Amino acid sequence: MVTAADFVFKGIVTSGNTTNIINAAVTPVFVQQFPALNGLGLSTARLDLAPGGVIPLHTHPAANEILVVTSGVIKAGFITSSSNKVYIATVKKGEVMVFPQGLLHFQINGGGVPASAVVTFNSPEPGLQILDFALFANDFPTELVTGTTFLDPALVKKLKGVLGGTN
Amino acid sequence: MVTAADFVFKGIVTSGNTTNIINAAVTPVFVQQFPALNGLGLSTARLDLAPGGVIPLHTHPAANEILVVTSGVIKAGFITSSSNKVYIATVKKGEVMVFPQGLLHFQINGGGVPASAVVTFNSPEPGLQILDFALFANDFPTELVTGTTFLDPALVKKLKGVLGGTN
Amino acid sequence: MVTAADFVFKGIVTSGNTTNIINAAVTPVFVQQFPALNGLGLSTARLDLAPGGVIPLHTHPAANEILVVTSGVIKAGFITSSSNKVYIATVKKGEVMVFPQGLLHFQINGGGVPASAVVTFNSPEPGLQILDFALFANDFPTELVTGTTFLDPALVKKLKGVLGGTN
Amino acid sequence: MVTAADFVFKGIVTSGNTTNIINAAVTPVFVQQFPALNGLGLSTARLDLAPGGVIPLHTHPAANEILVVTSGVIKAGFITSSSNKVYIATVKKGEVMVFPQGLLHFQINGGGVPASAVVTFNSPEPGLQILDFALFANDFPTELVTGTTFLDPALVKKLKGVLGGTN
Amino acid sequence: MVTAADFVFKGIVTSGNTTNIINAAVTPVFVQQFPALNGLGLSTARLDLAPGGVIPLHTHPAANEILVVTSGVIKAGFITSSSNKVYIATVKKGEVMVFPQGLLHFQINGGGVPASAVVTFNSPEPGLQILDFALFANDFPTELVTGTTFLDPALVKKLKGVLGGTN
Amino acid sequence: MVTAADFVFKGIVTSGNTTNIINAAVTPVFVQQFPALNGLGLSTARLDLAPGGVIPLHTHPAANEILVVTSGVIKAGFITSSSNKVYIATVKKGEVMVFPQGLLHFQINGGGVPASAVVTFNSPEPGLQILDFALFANDFPTELVTGTTFLDPALVKKLKGVLGGTN
Repeated sequence: MVTAADFVFKGIVTSGNTTNIINAAVTPVFVQQFPALNGLGLSTARLDLAPGGVIPLHTHPAANEILVVTSGVIKAGFITSSSNKVYIATVKKGEVMVFPQGLLHFQINGGGVPASAVVTFNSPEPGLQILDFALFANDFPTELVTGTTFLDPALVKKLKGVLGGTN
Repeated sequence: MVTAADFVFKGIVTSGNTTNIINAAVTPVFVQQFPALNGLGLSTARLDLAPGGVIPLHTHPAANEILVVTSGVIKAGFITSSSNKVYIATVKKGEVMVFPQGLLHFQINGGGVPASAVVTFNSPEPGLQILDFALFANDFPTELVTGTTFLDPALVKKLKGVLGGTN
Repeated sequence: MVTAADFVFKGIVTSGNTTNIINAAVTPVFVQQFPALNGLGLSTARLDLAPGGVIPLHTHPAANEILVVTSGVIKAGFITSSSNKVYIATVKKGEVMVFPQGLLHFQINGGGVPASAVVTFNSPEPGLQILDFALFANDFPTELVTGTTFLDPALVKKLKGVLGGTN
Repeated sequence: MVTAADFVFKGIVTSGNTTNIINAAVTPVFVQQFPALNGLGLSTARLDLAPGGVIPLHTHPAANEILVVTSGVIKAGFITSSSNKVYIATVKKGEVMVFPQGLLHFQINGGGVPASAVVTFNSPEPGLQILDFALFANDFPTELVTGTTFLDPALVKKLKGVLGGTN
Repeated sequence: MVTAADFVFKGIVTSGNTTNIINAAVTPVFVQQFPALNGLGLSTARLDLAPGGVIPLHTHPAANEILVVTSGVIKAGFITSSSNKVYIATVKKGEVMVFPQGLLHFQINGGGVPASAVVTFNSPEPGLQILDFALFANDFPTELVTGTTFLDPALVKKLKGVLGGTN
Repeated sequence: MVTAADFVFKGIVTSGNTTNIINAAVTPVFVQQFPALNGLGLSTARLDLAPGGVIPLHTHPAANEILVVTSGVIKAGFITSSSNKVYIATVKKGEVMVFPQGLLHFQINGGGVPASAVVTFNSPEPGLQILDFALFANDFPTELVTGTTFLDPALVKKLKGVLGGTN
């Protein structure tokens, strides 16, 4: 029995927990969290950035993104695929920024106070691939990480240590 | 020459003007207003509802919609096409609600204070058809309005007068 | 065991029953009625309009529509979303008219004799939201109907009475 | 200046000319003939089959098809791609049949009187590839026609003669 | 438990068996053969053409095709739907050719040595309708084959004999 | 005047130049290089890997990819977005591997001899974002690179020096 409550999601009313290594939180509202999104071609997420907070470089493999700052100031940017051009902007409360599908992008706290944003995707399952985690938080062999980037083994080993990776 | 500023839209930082017959404002950020949306399959809008404000029954012919309340409380609802079932919910600051494509829906101020929301669509051109304006704010002949609804001519004439319609 | 009969639908050979309040009938051939449409991105329907018959203002939330008049004369129209412009045409036997997705539109008998048409949609599930039924044939509270339109309570109560609505 | 007339097409009110080698006519209403179809994901065509008339085996490379018989009786069929299974049905006035995208299919007059049908496609440009014309009405070298089918050169030469092909 | 092996397909390393009536083989790698293709909008196939080998005229009802010659020389062509124009090219090892969706096309060995190619489709289920098999390798009644083409009954009966058809 | 030659691309017959820092080459055949791909939803590229060659970690923001090894042995892998799981496989001549859209992946020479592959994408413009170039070959400020990854400034400065980046 479907009720109106099935079309409402209350889980991003408050800030995500930013007491962590990046002083930031991404709280996804994808179809797994909010089944009403099924078939609608949309999903959303809340970003919270404590002072000094950073959403590290990441991609959404399957969706474009539109961001609205809901408090504070956010410095954000993305890198194009054709020419590796970097577009960086400071986005204040109420301002909007877009990030095209699959491109590396970031958001950092751009003021001295907590910032938050609502981002929306044109897919119920946009995916989220955080670069640091993809490289250093798994069993991707150090030899292959260094072999497929210009990073050196000592650094890779160190970051694997920080982020819980192995190999 | 594309710059980062082309990917940022600043036009919905402040409330739309709600000093009007509906005590409310819809400020669209569609591809016409924000060309960077071209090809991204996304657009957005800001809703502002003064106390007593109402976004009247309307549809977006070409997009699903996801709403996040950014201040105040909004009472919102939509009517399904299959069974004319009505789903109505009270949505508070930070809560999310979805409205499937093409269905009649509304938002009204659900508290005694100003409310606002950001809505996002999975199309750069979602369209907006406000029922009252479609029926009464144009030259749709009264005879045809009454002939294709159950409304009576006196009412149609009166509402055409209020909303600037003719015929 | 699939047979050729599975690809044929015989249910709209004869007129729908037009002995009703609108002197008209819409007989849908959507994927529910004709499973062979599954995956084909198409569906159809038969319209029958007795003299004086009206298919009231309605939308198809999820499909564009193309109509071919198969007997009689039909006066039809739709209202655009961008500017509330009304396009009305008289369509005779064998003539074709299109109605873009999600827009309010109507068909009325345009001659003194029975009329019929075949309409086709670019979706197996176009949906059908009839305005009068959405407003007056359900439990949509009168207070909200009037609050989200310019209609007055007495009218809403009266039409709910006619169409079987409550609240 | 767009007017209502732009959304109406009057060119298939009367039968196409069936005084030809196939005693039949296909009158397309694609986006080239009816510009209003642009962006709507739909197009249509009128089929006319004199007694003995045949729409020869053909495909629509880019669209599914739904057919409604508007007069007479039509025998129609298609061949699946997975197993070369043939589905053949007799379709009477008012009955509906579907033909999946890209599959060889045909329509022939199934009674002793003229028959007609309206077909609709889920594309504004469905395409039409008539097998006989593709093989025999162009400069496709006889050597290659025979080399890529099991037909023999004498037949190919003869049919090229009938249909205006060369080489 | 998904492993890397699930994303690898080893079934087209060697030539398909070309000891057959067409001296050629098509080895499909569609989603049925390689489940990892599910949802990826891609599939592939290996073509092998012994000297004198021919992939007879065929269509893929649901996909465009891009071919890369991996050994030998292939003469290939397709026929357009709009004007029955034939485009024929000789494609050598390492060269690429495209074949638009749903159009009749062929590949033949264009040298005196074995040739092979990899073809890729923008669908996990492109379909494959081989003209000869559609006409002559099933129970499509001879009377209807001749009635919907310009072929004569004796030829149809003969080819049905060769290809295992009946009726 | 369109000719058959317009549908053939000869530019990847021979190996790309692998005398470079990665001992490898990617030669794209996107719609810019091969206009016939326009509208076909497909593109391709040739990969060449000298002994020791590496196509560094990269993404295609807008397409899935299917790879067929045409000579030698390639070790390839990708990292999922949901769980940062790494799938690595050794793919030999004639074998096929898939890489889902937008995910970081790599290809390295897996034998002691030159290797090559043909990759195909389900988009005419798949895009190509090479991680090293996105981070180090542009004017992305060092402070932001380090701020949005866990890399340290000395390394970033060094790699910017190697790859031509500034800032």
